[in-house]
Amino acid sequence: MYTVRFFHDSGFTQLMPVMLGKSVDPLGPDPGSSVVKIPEIEYQGEKLRLTTSMILHKQVAVKGIGRIFIMSPNIRLERAERKESGRHLFEFTQADFEMSGAKKDDVFGLLEDYYRGLSEFLAREASEEFEALGIGIFEFKPPFKRYTTHELFDKYGEDWERQASLAHDQPFWAICYKREFYDKEDPKEEGHFLNYDLIYPEGFGEGISGAEREHEFEVIHRKIKRDKLDLSPYATYLKFAKAGLIPSAGAGIGMERLARFLSKSKHISEVTLFRRVPGMPVDI
Amino acid sequence: MYTVRFFHDSGFTQLMPVMLGKSVDPLGPDPGSSVVKIPEIEYQGEKLRLTTSMILHKQVAVKGIGRIFIMSPNIRLERAERKESGRHLFEFTQADFEMSGAKKDDVFGLLEDYYRGLSEFLAREASEEFEALGIGIFEFKPPFKRYTTHELFDKYGEDWERQASLAHDQPFWAICYKREFYDKEDPKEEGHFLNYDLIYPEGFGEGISGAEREHEFEVIHRKIKRDKLDLSPYATYLKFAKAGLIPSAGAGIGMERLARFLSKSKHISEVTLFRRVPGMPVDI
Repeated sequence: MYTVRFFHDSGFTQLMPVMLGKSVDPLGPDPGSSVVKIPEIEYQGEKLRLTTSMILHKQVAVKGIGRIFIMSPNIRLERAERKESGRHLFEFTQADFEMSGAKKDDVFGLLEDYYRGLSEFLAREASEEFEALGIGIFEFKPPFKRYTTHELFDKYGEDWERQASLAHDQPFWAICYKREFYDKEDPKEEGHFLNYDLIYPEGFGEGISGAEREHEFEVIHRKIKRDKLDLSPYATYLKFAKAGLIPSAGAGIGMERLARFLSKSKHISEVTLFRRVPGMPVDI
Repeated sequence: MYTVRFFHDSGFTQLMPVMLGKSVDPLGPDPGSSVVKIPEIEYQGEKLRLTTSMILHKQVAVKGIGRIFIMSPNIRLERAERKESGRHLFEFTQADFEMSGAKKDDVFGLLEDYYRGLSEFLAREASEEFEALGIGIFEFKPPFKRYTTHELFDKYGEDWERQASLAHDQPFWAICYKREFYDKEDPKEEGHFLNYDLIYPEGFGEGISGAEREHEFEVIHRKIKRDKLDLSPYATYLKFAKAGLIPSAGAGIGMERLARFLSKSKHISEVTLFRRVPGMPVDI
């Protein structure tokens, strides 16, 4: 598969996924905002949460390895109305990577190479399949434009993600979201954040999410309290943070969203084999 | 990674993993025999079980695609005493594949090519790493010997897996286990089964497990009842079985067990980054 080869060839070490953990991504500064709940199970007297994303594990792992990636299944029990978005599944896979010492420009450069190579790969290996679908192979033309979310909000209003996506014919970067505690706040500009999404054009919306990371214990601790998160699930992560994390940046590429964009599918469930759509029963 | 490339180059389509399902592998004819429980969560008024293996999903998927593989994270909440085995984790990844119309000899041939190629790949790409570890690269020399579990029992007694593993210097196939309902019973010999494990030598034990599959609704239904399993979790699978499954065979290669064998590690936790050992607390 192109994605796995790309990361191998770019010097990344592939880790096997983690599905159960003590400290997992809270999915936003408002606990559980985008989901019904973060499910957990009991085993050996411990509560283990299902992986919403491997971000906190990536931060620990990148310290020893430098460049890592994981084909990472994530579980996010979205609210039923998310069915209508056409781009939410309650379990999906992201190609999740992290680079020690990297800045957002390093991530942009790497991912723009990824998309340029993807167009070439598909033209070489999959032209018959796209012909059978009756659609062209999308030609990614990086570098992609870069906007701040503030610029996008000013131009397109509150619904900017959809409106700006419809107004573009190439993906673009949207920079600076107020998000989870682990996304780095700009030290030069309080209330601004060194994080980013890649937005696909033609109304397909967000396809990648990532950030430079907070790595200092004091800052992380303060921001977890700012977000009024229960500290106990983060105790193990904070222990690693106290022992020392390192600066890093990374992102996760949503595999099903990429497949949906490339195949121009109306609903993301069309690119999966087993139905995992919020608001619809599971088939098996 | 060698494994992913091997399956791609052998004409397999890679599926993304499934982590939550209605019908999952019961892990044995005795419900829950090897595990404390099969964990489940509630979402949208449904009970969803965490994936113990994707076997039932593979049977459904292989009907449309023919040759499939998945890098599949599995969750098996093993009893605490399994810590001592040195080869049990409560979450791990298997390279899980299935081929329509295949027989066990097809699986043996494919996997013997896999191991032959792995030795060549490691000699070419990883000789420095093995030198740093101070160990040689294991040279797989297929074809591997084939025994029935009955022969092995007669020669080595009840503890045959360990004893026979210690007595060999190459992996060998152990054929015919009484196992889950989906493993095919030999139509020519009742009470005998067309399934198999690959046992690593030098005491490392089981590394692969697979089978030809039952695909007829009546047989599957009878065997689920034979095993006294609660029918309700298998209702969705039985619906697919009634609509028609096809003959197939496959197996799953335990990635961490393979890494343990190649690196000659005493305990499987040494080849993972995050501790997921039965009987030990989770680190993060």
